[in-house]
Amino acid sequence: MSVVAPPPSLPPLRAARLQLHAAHQPIAVMRSDCHVCRSEGLSPRSQVLVTRGERQVQALLYQTDDERFPPDQVALSEAAWRALGLAEGEPVQVRHPPVLESLAGVRRRIYGRRLDAGDMAAIVRDVVQGRYTDVHLSAFLTATAALPLDADETVHLTHAMVEVGQCLSWPSPVVVDKHCVGGLPGNRTSPIVVAIAAANGLVMPKTSSRAITSPAGTADTMQTLAPVDLDLSTLRRVVEREGGCLAWGGAMHLSPADDIFVRIERELDIDTEGQLVASVLSKKIAAGATHVAIDIPVGPTAKIRSPEAARHLAARMQSVGERFGLVVRCLFTDGAQPVGRGIGPALEARDVLAVLRCEHDAPPDLRERAADIAGVVLELGGVAAEGAGPRLALETLDSGRAWERFVRICEAQGGLRTPPQAACVAPLVATHGGRVVHVDNRRLSRLAKLAGAPESPAAGLRLRVRLGDEVARGQPLLELHAQTAAELAYALDYARDAGDIVQVVA
Amino acid sequence: MSVVAPPPSLPPLRAARLQLHAAHQPIAVMRSDCHVCRSEGLSPRSQVLVTRGERQVQALLYQTDDERFPPDQVALSEAAWRALGLAEGEPVQVRHPPVLESLAGVRRRIYGRRLDAGDMAAIVRDVVQGRYTDVHLSAFLTATAALPLDADETVHLTHAMVEVGQCLSWPSPVVVDKHCVGGLPGNRTSPIVVAIAAANGLVMPKTSSRAITSPAGTADTMQTLAPVDLDLSTLRRVVEREGGCLAWGGAMHLSPADDIFVRIERELDIDTEGQLVASVLSKKIAAGATHVAIDIPVGPTAKIRSPEAARHLAARMQSVGERFGLVVRCLFTDGAQPVGRGIGPALEARDVLAVLRCEHDAPPDLRERAADIAGVVLELGGVAAEGAGPRLALETLDSGRAWERFVRICEAQGGLRTPPQAACVAPLVATHGGRVVHVDNRRLSRLAKLAGAPESPAAGLRLRVRLGDEVARGQPLLELHAQTAAELAYALDYARDAGDIVQVVA
Repeated sequence: MSVVAPPPSLPPLRAARLQLHAAHQPIAVMRSDCHVCRSEGLSPRSQVLVTRGERQVQALLYQTDDERFPPDQVALSEAAWRALGLAEGEPVQVRHPPVLESLAGVRRRIYGRRLDAGDMAAIVRDVVQGRYTDVHLSAFLTATAALPLDADETVHLTHAMVEVGQCLSWPSPVVVDKHCVGGLPGNRTSPIVVAIAAANGLVMPKTSSRAITSPAGTADTMQTLAPVDLDLSTLRRVVEREGGCLAWGGAMHLSPADDIFVRIERELDIDTEGQLVASVLSKKIAAGATHVAIDIPVGPTAKIRSPEAARHLAARMQSVGERFGLVVRCLFTDGAQPVGRGIGPALEARDVLAVLRCEHDAPPDLRERAADIAGVVLELGGVAAEGAGPRLALETLDSGRAWERFVRICEAQGGLRTPPQAACVAPLVATHGGRVVHVDNRRLSRLAKLAGAPESPAAGLRLRVRLGDEVARGQPLLELHAQTAAELAYALDYARDAGDIVQVVA
Repeated sequence: MSVVAPPPSLPPLRAARLQLHAAHQPIAVMRSDCHVCRSEGLSPRSQVLVTRGERQVQALLYQTDDERFPPDQVALSEAAWRALGLAEGEPVQVRHPPVLESLAGVRRRIYGRRLDAGDMAAIVRDVVQGRYTDVHLSAFLTATAALPLDADETVHLTHAMVEVGQCLSWPSPVVVDKHCVGGLPGNRTSPIVVAIAAANGLVMPKTSSRAITSPAGTADTMQTLAPVDLDLSTLRRVVEREGGCLAWGGAMHLSPADDIFVRIERELDIDTEGQLVASVLSKKIAAGATHVAIDIPVGPTAKIRSPEAARHLAARMQSVGERFGLVVRCLFTDGAQPVGRGIGPALEARDVLAVLRCEHDAPPDLRERAADIAGVVLELGGVAAEGAGPRLALETLDSGRAWERFVRICEAQGGLRTPPQAACVAPLVATHGGRVVHVDNRRLSRLAKLAGAPESPAAGLRLRVRLGDEVARGQPLLELHAQTAAELAYALDYARDAGDIVQVVA
């Protein structure tokens, strides 16, 4: 029998930057025969904890036998590199991550037991710390789809999602906000609603997201009109001066768990009410809102497809909101076809400008919908009597006060811009005459994305017809806008059977 | 408006070998600015289909800006490289994978609808083709844990798992087999049972797995006694000549979906009855068995913890087996403590040898348990009357016929070997006197793995006491075996509070 020494302290590895992009996934590449892999018994595709002083990040481990990777080195992806704030060659420690205690809650939930506030807090904390693998995240979201979150769990989840992020606070006792549950291309009412609310003296610090699966998010559209990547002090200054802003929310770190959950739900193509409520309300609570109008488009190819589902969602939004002292009012809107004419950042921005400037050919549906939502916001904010909001909203537009306020907000954010124009434009024409009876929102979005939206801000499409219109053979149904001929060709290729995307019946 | 060309056909990329190990996950690394990423609109961490002639593989895409990766190259991990059978610099096509149709079945299952045979076949086919991401796999397994697989679904899943792999067939009308549902360290009865069955004229082509989470699989233990990595023709020759074999099943490609599901279940630490039944039976059916004895250890730290759960599992194993014409008989065995004395490949092999050679200090519990299981196998195989199997099994051991047959099987597989001996051995002693009242199987396994099992075949531990034994202070409870002093030190460090692993009460 040998004499036994205490466990030796392992010498650190040198950090090397791998310049690998993996959509927020930290990755570590180490030689299979390095002393750490061997003594720690690390296997490929396991999780490791990489530590540099006080900072640490959990990473996915891959191993290599390639001589280009020295055995005393750990090569780190961009996400890991940034999280640790490293310089080339700095020493780091790599070891097994601690046991993931909160996973016991996920397992209990899989087997049908409910989660309390403590369980949810522990899960969400580990999620934002990057300790959940895709396997764990998918199990959590699947379990809460198989047995939907109840009201209490939705409150706990919302609370947990708020707690792990930053929270904004405002001196005003009333802070209004709006949100659309999405799924409807072109529904770009926020810039108009903010301009109307701020012009009427309300405080509306609107933060928006960039597109995730859609051809344009509000932040993408607004970016063609003004800078949106504001730091917190700029945002405060804009709101203080103009009453409202239209900023990108990404830099604010509001409800950071949401982005992680959304990525997995998108991959599974599942969308549950409980997650939706927690997602929307956690962001609004973290943004400091006290009164929120929620636009719920209902239609066969929108996210919410039936009036029953819409009513159930609205009731849950209101009841959960109440638990946080948040006043929520939902509007059910027509989700049968896109709003306005443009789909894509710049094309939607031009619709917004037309409405704000009261141009004679401004899309009437966008004007009307923005006025309805702004009306609810004005009523919630106490500057219009119940039922008088939409009229005040239209007056604010028609008097030019909304446009004037919008210009001032854009100037405060860094200057009003002119949306770009695409280099290549091609029409998609009707192959036969008849009446437009159906518009497929999902496939229209896909088409706009194939044309290059939102990465190319000028790309997308412009609808030339609406439901119920009579069209002749050869008449344009829509125009495709792209920056390159190749992208235009791809989109046209997809759209060959456009009869299905915009359905014309003789 | 520009004139539109048809979508250009993309020039291929050159394949480069990355030598990256990611536990079967094919990975492709491409420059962010390469023409394929740009024109296909590929985003990091998405799935791509890599094609070389007739062969294709679905891979996880990472992007890089590193100059060491040329923009006309795609660097591929070992799993992708092997799947495509590539040579350095060969041209490959990279594009979006086709839509994963079977995911609609997973989504329906999440929302509580049952899957039919066609759904299961489509899901399992896509799983073994590597088209399911971890997110999809986790969702499927979580959904079937939240709402357990019913009898029909278990049959459909078993059938689907058999169909996607290779199936062995044997000229004999009766082919016996055995399986242990696991969770009990040292329970290494297979070599003994095969020797007894073959010595009595039965056909028992036993294929076993290597350890997944345990300190030794039967294949790991057998490898210290004879070669186990047999190709199909060698396996057939061994069985033809000796009636039995003890081979590694990995090369046989039997039920390949199983390994994929097991990896995800392990990460989630969930284990459902339906998946367990489909896993065990699909492998037995694919191996060509007609009669199977299943050992179900029951105990507080075994996989199956209650008699009720064991009975339910046995009933499901039998009823599903029947649907495939498979005769299944289950034995409930004591799962309160390990079987035999050794835990780890070589240490278990020595217990097996002692029982087969009828050595005076052979572990009696291993002898008895192997005889019970072999008895059921002999009865199922029709060479012993009902109830007379265990006696015949013991006679076969005592007469030396089992040992003689075991030696012949090992010789046919390539030669009998002597299990290796560890370089470092250290005892773990009782910190106080008393009676052994509890043995934690899970933590014993962990301890043996920390000592280096199964990678170091000589590593592991040897129990010196059993439940109910009286021990004095300072008396060894177990011996740790390791190849290096460092590994021994790590294991001892973990075992500091060994009182909990082997609990002694005054």
